[in-house]
Amino acid sequence: MAEPRYTIGVDFGTESARAVLVDVADGRELGTEVYEYRNGVIDEHLPSPDEDVVLGPDWALQDPNDYLETFKRAVPGVVAKAGIRAEQVIGIGIDFTACTMLPTTTDGTPLCFLEGYRRRPHAWVKLWKHHAAQPEADDVNRVAAEMGEDWLGRYGGKISSEWFFPKALQILREAPDIYAAADRLIEAADWVVWQLTGVETRNNCTAGYKAIWSAEDGFPRREFFAALDPAFAGVVDEKMSRSISRLGEAAGHLTARAAEWTGLREGIAVAVANVDAHVSAPAAGVIEPGTLVAIMGTSTCHIILSDSAPVVPGACGVVKDGVIPGFFGYEAGQSAVGDIFAWFVEQAVPPLYHEKARARGVTVHEVLEEEAAALRPGESGLLALDWWNGNRSVLVDADLSGLMIGMTLATRPPEMYRALIEATAFGTRTIIDAFEAGGIRVERVVTCGGLPERNRLLMQIYADVTGRALRVAASAQTPALGSAMFGAVVAGSTAGGYASIKEAAAHMAHLRDVVYEPIEANRLVYNVLYREYVRLHDLFGRGGDPAIKTLKRLRVAAKEATAVRG
Amino acid sequence: MAEPRYTIGVDFGTESARAVLVDVADGRELGTEVYEYRNGVIDEHLPSPDEDVVLGPDWALQDPNDYLETFKRAVPGVVAKAGIRAEQVIGIGIDFTACTMLPTTTDGTPLCFLEGYRRRPHAWVKLWKHHAAQPEADDVNRVAAEMGEDWLGRYGGKISSEWFFPKALQILREAPDIYAAADRLIEAADWVVWQLTGVETRNNCTAGYKAIWSAEDGFPRREFFAALDPAFAGVVDEKMSRSISRLGEAAGHLTARAAEWTGLREGIAVAVANVDAHVSAPAAGVIEPGTLVAIMGTSTCHIILSDSAPVVPGACGVVKDGVIPGFFGYEAGQSAVGDIFAWFVEQAVPPLYHEKARARGVTVHEVLEEEAAALRPGESGLLALDWWNGNRSVLVDADLSGLMIGMTLATRPPEMYRALIEATAFGTRTIIDAFEAGGIRVERVVTCGGLPERNRLLMQIYADVTGRALRVAASAQTPALGSAMFGAVVAGSTAGGYASIKEAAAHMAHLRDVVYEPIEANRLVYNVLYREYVRLHDLFGRGGDPAIKTLKRLRVAAKEATAVRG
Repeated sequence: MAEPRYTIGVDFGTESARAVLVDVADGRELGTEVYEYRNGVIDEHLPSPDEDVVLGPDWALQDPNDYLETFKRAVPGVVAKAGIRAEQVIGIGIDFTACTMLPTTTDGTPLCFLEGYRRRPHAWVKLWKHHAAQPEADDVNRVAAEMGEDWLGRYGGKISSEWFFPKALQILREAPDIYAAADRLIEAADWVVWQLTGVETRNNCTAGYKAIWSAEDGFPRREFFAALDPAFAGVVDEKMSRSISRLGEAAGHLTARAAEWTGLREGIAVAVANVDAHVSAPAAGVIEPGTLVAIMGTSTCHIILSDSAPVVPGACGVVKDGVIPGFFGYEAGQSAVGDIFAWFVEQAVPPLYHEKARARGVTVHEVLEEEAAALRPGESGLLALDWWNGNRSVLVDADLSGLMIGMTLATRPPEMYRALIEATAFGTRTIIDAFEAGGIRVERVVTCGGLPERNRLLMQIYADVTGRALRVAASAQTPALGSAMFGAVVAGSTAGGYASIKEAAAHMAHLRDVVYEPIEANRLVYNVLYREYVRLHDLFGRGGDPAIKTLKRLRVAAKEATAVRG
Repeated sequence: MAEPRYTIGVDFGTESARAVLVDVADGRELGTEVYEYRNGVIDEHLPSPDEDVVLGPDWALQDPNDYLETFKRAVPGVVAKAGIRAEQVIGIGIDFTACTMLPTTTDGTPLCFLEGYRRRPHAWVKLWKHHAAQPEADDVNRVAAEMGEDWLGRYGGKISSEWFFPKALQILREAPDIYAAADRLIEAADWVVWQLTGVETRNNCTAGYKAIWSAEDGFPRREFFAALDPAFAGVVDEKMSRSISRLGEAAGHLTARAAEWTGLREGIAVAVANVDAHVSAPAAGVIEPGTLVAIMGTSTCHIILSDSAPVVPGACGVVKDGVIPGFFGYEAGQSAVGDIFAWFVEQAVPPLYHEKARARGVTVHEVLEEEAAALRPGESGLLALDWWNGNRSVLVDADLSGLMIGMTLATRPPEMYRALIEATAFGTRTIIDAFEAGGIRVERVVTCGGLPERNRLLMQIYADVTGRALRVAASAQTPALGSAMFGAVVAGSTAGGYASIKEAAAHMAHLRDVVYEPIEANRLVYNVLYREYVRLHDLFGRGGDPAIKTLKRLRVAAKEATAVRG
C-alpha cells in the first residue's frame, strides 16, 4: 500500500482564514488550523497606528498582511498538528471571499504596504462587504441599461456594489492618485495565489461572477468603461488582464519563498484560485443540476448547476464552467444570515440570556435556539425582512436595510431570534422561487457552512419554509475541502491526485445521514407568513414605498460630516 | 395666622398607588407614600394559590384588595411621614386608571373576593390595558355604525376595547354566570370612593370618556345594547346607575371604617372619583383652551380643552365638563410610551449597557439617553411605529403592533432607543395634527408624569418633532396633586379649601421654569422622517397592508390552544 497523499485547502474568510489538511484517498480531514486576522474587518478606522483615519459608512477593508500571515502560520501549523511529513502534501488550493480586491504595484506589492499610501483607505483591500461603492454600482447599471449591454442579463439585470468594477470605479473617483499608482487591480484570491506561485493569474470564477467576464465575450467593451469615466476606459488592459485561467488548472508551482513560509515542498502544484461558495459545491458532492447548495455562514451563498443558461432575474450571475466544468453555474446569495443572528446576540439580547448561557456552559445562540424551538410557527407574531446587510438577491440592492414588524410588550428575545431565522429562510425561498420561475429546477437543498451543523432549529425552519428536504455536507469546512480537492486535481493522478473534479468529488465529498424533511403543518403556516413576507419584500424592496431609501439618505447625510473619505 | 390645612390625593396607577399630602395654601407637597400592588398587573395567570389558572393573550387584571391596602398603608404612611396631625387633613380626592372595572355584589364586595369566584378570571378587575375584549369592541363599533348611533362621533368614530361596555360584554359572553352574579359593574375609581364613603357614586369623567355617557343624552339606548346581545339590553339599569355625579362634587364623607383604615378624621369630604390623566390638567395649571396636556408614563394621555365640540376623528372622547367645568374636555392617548422604553431595556439591551449603568451608578435608561443624545436626527437610519401596545388614537386599534425599519449590522442599542423615543413623538404629532385638523388649536404642550422629568432628550425630541414649545408641570405627581386639589374643592372654602377647581389651580398648580423650544435644524429632518412615519402609519394602520392583522391572527391561533379562558 502506497504512502498516503494529502492536499491542503486554504479558505480565506471574513474574520479569519483556515488551512485544512485532507487525505486525497477519501476526503478525511486530518486537521485544521485557523488564523484569526489580526486586523479583522476594518470598518470604523484604519488599524494602529492610524486609528485617526476614520472610514465612511458602509466601508469594509482588510489587511493583505493577514493573508500572508495565514500562509506563515496556519499551513505549517496544520501539518505539524497532523503529524505528517510535509513531503506527503502534493498540492494546494485556495478559496476566498469575493469580490475582495486590492490595488498593487507591478510586482504585486499592495499599495497599503507602501509608506506613502498606508493612511489612505483606498489603498487597502476592499472586502466583499464593502458597500460604499453603491453610487458607482448605480452608475454601472444605469449606463449599461442606456447602452443596452448584453451582459446585464447574465447578472439578473443588476451589478452589485460588492463587485469589481464598482469598487475599482470608486477608487478612481475618490482617490484618482491611488488609481493611477495601482499598476494592478486584482482579486485577493488571485493575489494570494500570485504570492504562492510568483505568477499573476486570474481565475474564471471571480472574473465571471464578479468582473462581468465570460469566455465568449470577455470583459465589457472599452466604450462602456469610457462612458462611466474617460479615465476608466482602459481599466482592463491597464490594470487587469485578458488572460483568464480556468478552475481545475494549475496556476503554477510553489516558489522557494512560499515553500519557506508554508513549510511545504517547493514546486508542488497550486490550483487556480476559487471562491469559497463555489468551491463548496463539489465538496458537498454537488456536480449535477437539481440540487441547490446553500453555503451558510455570516452570509449565505447559493450555487446551482444547469445545462442551459436562462436569464434568472436577481441571480448574482451565471458563468459557464464557473463551478463545475461542463455546466452553467448560477450564483445567488443573501448578504447577511449568521451576521444577523450574531448582531442580535451582541446588540439585542439582555443579560438574562447571557447568564443562562454562562450557567449552562453553552452559547447564547444555544439558549435562544432552545427557547425558540418551543414556539410554534406564527406564535411570535413577528415577521422580519432579512436586509441587515442589504439584499444581494433577488433585489440586488445594498442600500436596503432590515425590518421587523409585530412587536408587542410581550415580545421576548427568543421570539425575535426565531423571526430572524425565519426571515432568512424566507429570503432563501425568494431565491428558490426566482430560480424555478426562470426555469432552473430546485428539487432539494444541500447546506454547508457553520450554521447548519450548529442549529437544528434553523435547518427545520428552512425545510418547512422552502418545502424541500435539506441535507448537510459532512465536512464542517466545505470551502477548504473543495480547495483541497482542486489541489488534488492540479497535482494530477500521476502524483496521487485525480484527473477531474468530478472524480475527486466521487472520492472525497460526503453528506451527513440526517435529512430534514418539511413538516406539513408548519409548512402551511409558513406559506401564509411567506405571502406577507413577499408583499413587504416587494413593497419596500422594489420601490413601492421609499421609507428605506429615505432613511438611508438621512443616515448618510448625518454621518458624512464626521467621516473622512479617500 | 391660621393652622395650615392639607388635603390628600390618592393616585391609583398600573403597578402601584401613591398618596400625596398637599398644602392647600400653595400646593406644596409635604410627602408621598407609594404602595406597590402586591399582585401588580395580573397578565399571565391568577395570583397564588391559583397560579394554575392561565390567562389568555391580551388579558390584564388587578386585585381590588391592593386598592384597599393602599388606603390602609399609603394614607396613614404619608401623614406619619409628614409629621402633621391627621386633623389638619380636610379633604381627600382619588384618581384612577380608566377604564378599570370590576363586578361586585350589591354591597360592593368584588366577586373575586368570594370563594366561589376566586378562580374565575372574569370575576377580577379588568385593568385599562386588558385588550382581550377586542372582538366585543369590534361588535360595538359595527352595531353602532349599522344602527347609526349618534354618540359614535364623540369618540372619534370608534369605541376602544379598553372601555366599559366591551369589557362588560366580554364577561357576559365568556362567563354568563359571572355576569348574572354581578349586581354591579363599576369603575374601580368609583368603587374605591364607595369604599371610603359607603356611597355608590358614578363620576361623569369615566362615564363620559369610557362608558358612552353624556349629560344631554345619557347612556346608549336599550335597543342598542339589545342588538349586541338580548341579555345585555338592561346592563345600565341592572348593573350600573343613571345617576352620574360631576367632578368637583363631594361623593360623601369618610366613614368610620375608612377613617380607621386611613387614620384620617371621620366625616371629612371625599371628592367624586376622577381619572389620572384628566385630573392632571388642572394640576398642570391648564384650565383653558390652547394647551395640550401630555401625561407621560407607561402610556401617554392627552387632554385639551375647547369652547366647542367639533368631531375629531380618532380622539378618544369629548365630554362636557369632563375635565374643567365650563369646557369640553377632549381626551386622546398613546397606549404605550414609557412601557416601550422599559420593554426595550428589559428585552433588548445587551449586558454592556447594564454594566456601564452599574459601574456609574445610573440607570440603563440614563446610559442609553446619553449615547442617544450624541446622535443627530436621522443618524440612526431607523424609524419605528410605536404600536407595541396597539394604537389608542388616531387609529383606535388594540390589535396593531410595533414596527422598526432600517436596521443594519452597524445598528446599536442607543440608536434603537432613540428611534423608539422618536416614534412616540411622531405618535404625539399625529394626535396634535388630528386635533388641529378638527379645529382644536394646539399652541403649546405641557407635560407631566414620570418621563418628562427624567429624560431631557425625550423632551427636546418632542419639541423638535411637534414644532411646539414644551413645558413641564412642577409636580412630579400631577394626578395625586390634582386629586388633592379636588379634595380642597369638596372641603370648601369655609373649611379652608376652595370654591372651585379654577381657584384651586390658581393657588396650587405650578410649572417648572425650563422651556424646551424646537431646534429648527432638527425640526426639518424630523419633518422628513414624519412624512415617512405617517405613510407607514396609514399603510399598516388603516388597512392598506394586512401584515399586522395576519400576524396577530397567526399569533392568537398558535397561543389559543394552550390558554385557559373565562
